[in-house]
Amino acid sequence: MGDVERWHELGQQLRVDSIRAAAVTNSGHPTSSMSAADLMAVLMTNYLHYDFDAPENPNNDHLIFSKGHASPLLYSMYKAAGAISEEELLTFRKFGSRLEGHPVPVLPWVDVATGSLGQGLPISVGVALAGKNLDRLPFRVWCLCGDSEMAEGSMWEAFEHAAFYELDNLVAVLDINRLGQRGPTMHEWDLNSYANRARAFGWKAIEIDGHDYEEIDRAYAEAIETHGQPTAIVARTIKGKGVKEVENKEGWHGKALDHPDEAITELGGVRNEVIQVPKPEESGEPHVFETSELELPRYDEGDDVATRKAYGDALAALGSANGKVVAVDGEVSNSTFAEIFKEAHPDRYFEMYIAEQQMVAASVGMQVRGWHPFASTFACFLSRAYDLVRMAAISRARFSMCGSHAGVSIGPVIYGPHEEFPVGGARVVRSSDDDDVTIVGAGITLHEALKAADALAEEGVSARVIDLYSVKPVDAETLQAAAEATGGRIVTVEDHWPEGGLGEAVLSVFADSEERPQVVKLAVQGMPGSGKPDELLAAAGIDAEHIAEAVRRLVSAAALT
Amino acid sequence: MGDVERWHELGQQLRVDSIRAAAVTNSGHPTSSMSAADLMAVLMTNYLHYDFDAPENPNNDHLIFSKGHASPLLYSMYKAAGAISEEELLTFRKFGSRLEGHPVPVLPWVDVATGSLGQGLPISVGVALAGKNLDRLPFRVWCLCGDSEMAEGSMWEAFEHAAFYELDNLVAVLDINRLGQRGPTMHEWDLNSYANRARAFGWKAIEIDGHDYEEIDRAYAEAIETHGQPTAIVARTIKGKGVKEVENKEGWHGKALDHPDEAITELGGVRNEVIQVPKPEESGEPHVFETSELELPRYDEGDDVATRKAYGDALAALGSANGKVVAVDGEVSNSTFAEIFKEAHPDRYFEMYIAEQQMVAASVGMQVRGWHPFASTFACFLSRAYDLVRMAAISRARFSMCGSHAGVSIGPVIYGPHEEFPVGGARVVRSSDDDDVTIVGAGITLHEALKAADALAEEGVSARVIDLYSVKPVDAETLQAAAEATGGRIVTVEDHWPEGGLGEAVLSVFADSEERPQVVKLAVQGMPGSGKPDELLAAAGIDAEHIAEAVRRLVSAAALT
Repeated sequence: MGDVERWHELGQQLRVDSIRAAAVTNSGHPTSSMSAADLMAVLMTNYLHYDFDAPENPNNDHLIFSKGHASPLLYSMYKAAGAISEEELLTFRKFGSRLEGHPVPVLPWVDVATGSLGQGLPISVGVALAGKNLDRLPFRVWCLCGDSEMAEGSMWEAFEHAAFYELDNLVAVLDINRLGQRGPTMHEWDLNSYANRARAFGWKAIEIDGHDYEEIDRAYAEAIETHGQPTAIVARTIKGKGVKEVENKEGWHGKALDHPDEAITELGGVRNEVIQVPKPEESGEPHVFETSELELPRYDEGDDVATRKAYGDALAALGSANGKVVAVDGEVSNSTFAEIFKEAHPDRYFEMYIAEQQMVAASVGMQVRGWHPFASTFACFLSRAYDLVRMAAISRARFSMCGSHAGVSIGPVIYGPHEEFPVGGARVVRSSDDDDVTIVGAGITLHEALKAADALAEEGVSARVIDLYSVKPVDAETLQAAAEATGGRIVTVEDHWPEGGLGEAVLSVFADSEERPQVVKLAVQGMPGSGKPDELLAAAGIDAEHIAEAVRRLVSAAALT
Repeated sequence: MGDVERWHELGQQLRVDSIRAAAVTNSGHPTSSMSAADLMAVLMTNYLHYDFDAPENPNNDHLIFSKGHASPLLYSMYKAAGAISEEELLTFRKFGSRLEGHPVPVLPWVDVATGSLGQGLPISVGVALAGKNLDRLPFRVWCLCGDSEMAEGSMWEAFEHAAFYELDNLVAVLDINRLGQRGPTMHEWDLNSYANRARAFGWKAIEIDGHDYEEIDRAYAEAIETHGQPTAIVARTIKGKGVKEVENKEGWHGKALDHPDEAITELGGVRNEVIQVPKPEESGEPHVFETSELELPRYDEGDDVATRKAYGDALAALGSANGKVVAVDGEVSNSTFAEIFKEAHPDRYFEMYIAEQQMVAASVGMQVRGWHPFASTFACFLSRAYDLVRMAAISRARFSMCGSHAGVSIGPVIYGPHEEFPVGGARVVRSSDDDDVTIVGAGITLHEALKAADALAEEGVSARVIDLYSVKPVDAETLQAAAEATGGRIVTVEDHWPEGGLGEAVLSVFADSEERPQVVKLAVQGMPGSGKPDELLAAAGIDAEHIAEAVRRLVSAAALT
């Protein structure tokens, strides 16, 4: 059998299996799978280097479906590679199956969860960046993208950064099947509009017929010979290709076929061929960065040290002790003090410019390869990447995010260098045997709480002060003990809206208890404007003065009863 | 005085005033203002048509600073236009001043709050879209963009949509001053990289020296003669231009000058010229769409009608009765049923494709012109626009967002057509004089709550059921009455994580009350997978069975005490 014939047989098998998988629960996206089947048939036969028996092999290529809804195609490829059985393929989307509607990394060959569009490509940029600059291994990242998702700005952040970092180990395969969910895409089959944008952003772009095996083959061959820039293969394809009933027709997005058996016959029937996916060359182990003993920064108690300066110092120290630590920043490293890390470990620092979605996606991609990124920017800008963070949680991705400038004040040093802050814990900063009330704060409001406690002490009111630095999970035991010891009187204070924050976390601890303390919540209620920090804290009603006043009212009401 | 001399004088005045404003509280972004001063001097003298005495004039152009941190320049322009006094300019960033660090619409000439980068241009697209397709007036939208923010994907969503909708009434002025906050931008002074991207996205792009008045003048002249596509003026500028101490130097972003007096002297001293900004031509009133009587859709109680179908029906009906109603959708109108509106009112429907940031930004822009957009997509995808929604709140923007598919079930009809649902209200769906417990749900969990109440009734347990359809603000009165009437026993159930949702809203009502009910919160705790709706509700522990069981435990514990 010649190459073209083999590819054709495999392409048809992938289509048939996509249809069969979708038929199981009568759901899923078979037509979106069928458009890309030929592209993937050639890829897995000749270009993808992957050892399905050893997914942890650092030399494996990575295959990421940015159009995660084409999961039936991905699972059909796994079956064709011999990685899953026919039986398992036919559990698609059943409750409890690992073959979910969208790919999740519970499957050992899936790097990250995709499905929310516009995320797989920026994450692929992170994996490719790790391959080139951290692992320093020649593996490639192949990313299958849909045409609809090209409207997402996050895709263009990825195009920008992939070119800037000269990621010639990244190939994006654009499956231009013309039809989105509700009808034609913005550019339909105007391949040029995609290719021109890609070129303007610094990529090589190759336009092909995505059902012509020889064109596909040539495009991949050209992609792997391209140096200094990433490649986009812009492929004209037909949604539902191969089955007349659905081919290039509107109204068939995200639907199983009405007549799967007839469709399978039209495609030449069920095949169960298993092909040999090329194994990766053994190019060695990932690069290891030199390390030294951990020496954490030390400050004298009582010193004024900006929290973010301490962040930069600590991150640089962590980076010295742990070669896996990496920093990415959103063009504000002089504010977040990630620049201290950059100076100490320039090879492990990546400037993401003002592209927060790409910054988070790069972190997700780097952790795929076992690196531990710390992503930093101003706290409010992290919200630009909200949906990427949500999907990262589904991926169970391990990385750290640090949002600076969430409050309006800087930190005096309260804790000594040997204190530990386990997640889910809380710290009783001040207490006595006869406390009248508990004040719970965190960050800047902790400082205000301590000031309030000082003022109250002079009036003969003794306040226990708790640093609730972990809001989720919350330290129920410490709070319960405090409530009991202080007559069920608690004041919470947060530099945050009242919904979903520290106060509500405290309330939740006691929601269904037999004894439920009285909780006064101080939180930001109005829209803040410009002004000095102390003006803003006072205007928001969360400064020491307001805390003390809330305590006075609570304690005097208790005295009356 | 010739044109060039006049522009020069005005440019210097804008620089001097930017420096003076920043000197007041020793904060702000004077150097980012100085780079664009010449661009704005020519604009306000010859091209911006705006009646500062009548900001509500529908024929006014719109000037939006996407680089909102250049607010000292914007306020200096207001002073030069005679709109604010010198005294007011010198209140910049003082507590209580309307001249905040970033522009906010408390100023009558500011359309929207900007400052979080990458938002002003997509919002400008919305204003321009309203001008061209809704108002049908010839006003122009001028948008000043920074170079750093060009890394935000939201900017490229804007480029894509502006070209697609052929917005020749939109001019983006790109202030390429080479320096971001922490140092050089990705492309520094490579004007071509910006211009090529803009052209690939379908824009006209004009590259100029942003301090050459004649080049600036010619570029604007060309922009207003361009038809069928938006224009980007890509201007090479110098950050801090005109003051040697800071000109093109790193480390001067977001800082007042160290020696403002010397800088002002270097710029030729304080000027207080007031110029005549051209008034708009009186081109008529905004287009008014024909309306008819409001006829809301009706369903029989007990019918199965998907909530989203009801949304589409109701939106189309609203659109018939109110010509200001507009719909935008993220390429899922066949799922959100916004397509019903599209069929009824094609002129007021705008496809935003899969670009949620642009969808929300377009809504913000359209409401600037008094239209009332309804933006719809799947609920989870709305989170892509999180930061735009946050800024829209600061703008006090009035529009509606509808996220579909937030739960896993469809709705039976519970309410008759004449029921009202005021914001901040709640509905007691079932109650008797001797209720033992209150169950609070909303949406799909309300249906489960009703099923649980049926089951409990057979066991002799009487449950009050409340539809808490408004979580913020929350109907405290109804909840307090229910808590009192049902022995302080409440079960809350939500198709949501336990943090920041319905359960915590209920807890907050009673936080500092004398009597605090016992609240059992049922919420999603694990990571959901694929499966049938009833399997998912059961697995999450929020179905009728779990509700009934929680009630039984609460009631039997009460019986024991």
